[in-house]
Amino acid sequence: MFQDPLYFDDLQAGDKFTTQCHEVRADDIRRFAEEFDPQPFHLDDAAARGTLFAGLAASGWHTASITMRLLVTSGPKLAGGIVGAGGELEWKVPTRPGDILHVDSEVVELIPSRSRPDRGMLVLRSRTLNQHGEVVQTLTARLMLPRRATAK
Amino acid sequence: MFQDPLYFDDLQAGDKFTTQCHEVRADDIRRFAEEFDPQPFHLDDAAARGTLFAGLAASGWHTASITMRLLVTSGPKLAGGIVGAGGELEWKVPTRPGDILHVDSEVVELIPSRSRPDRGMLVLRSRTLNQHGEVVQTLTARLMLPRRATAK
Repeated sequence: MFQDPLYFDDLQAGDKFTTQCHEVRADDIRRFAEEFDPQPFHLDDAAARGTLFAGLAASGWHTASITMRLLVTSGPKLAGGIVGAGGELEWKVPTRPGDILHVDSEVVELIPSRSRPDRGMLVLRSRTLNQHGEVVQTLTARLMLPRRATAK
Repeated sequence: MFQDPLYFDDLQAGDKFTTQCHEVRADDIRRFAEEFDPQPFHLDDAAARGTLFAGLAASGWHTASITMRLLVTSGPKLAGGIVGAGGELEWKVPTRPGDILHVDSEVVELIPSRSRPDRGMLVLRSRTLNQHGEVVQTLTARLMLPRRATAK
């Protein structure tokens, strides 16, 4: 992980990245839910049985936050860091206790800024997968990225 | 907060909701970042000075998670809870230490399910505002919601 940081000009559509893995424990699911999403299906397995989730499931925001952790710690090393302007999220399958998640990402588009010649927008599509190869989340993020020409 | 839960059939486009407030402390920002978004501008004020953020700023995922907390604890009381299928996020202004956030939401659209007559999709646009009235985040979420007719 000592490679040079990537600038806007270093990337092209189709470039791919894969992160390391992260195990999600039941305690983590409950702790996140208590603070940010205190609903029965994220807090208690027995209570979750009678819901749409049919068992304890992580908050979608927990899955999104773990995805960010994986991207920051073992995803593309972007110049200036991973700075999002926004994005589209889709939750496809719940994250469950014991799941081992990783993220694969692909550059979709690179959009130069019209007003700021020193930066551009990277559109990065990330899939978060569990140990069964199921996609639990997709995130198409718009990230701000400096350009190399004016980066010095 | 003892009103009856809201089913798909109880809502219409234009319905509005407002949450209570939540104060974001510098310690909260750092603690979230350490676990989920360990980048300098979310961890340390001095390090953040030299970045795009020009001072400590919360992770966008932290803002999103606080938004969820506010919606769950004091937003619309939806039948079956707030269960998201996905959505579009936009971060407009950083969340700063000491910010006091609240969320206002509006029903954008109600889409009956074609395959499942017992449910529909609620499109809810939520703005997260700080104490200055600035919109720090917008979230247009797609939420699954049971229909009243078959809910018993």
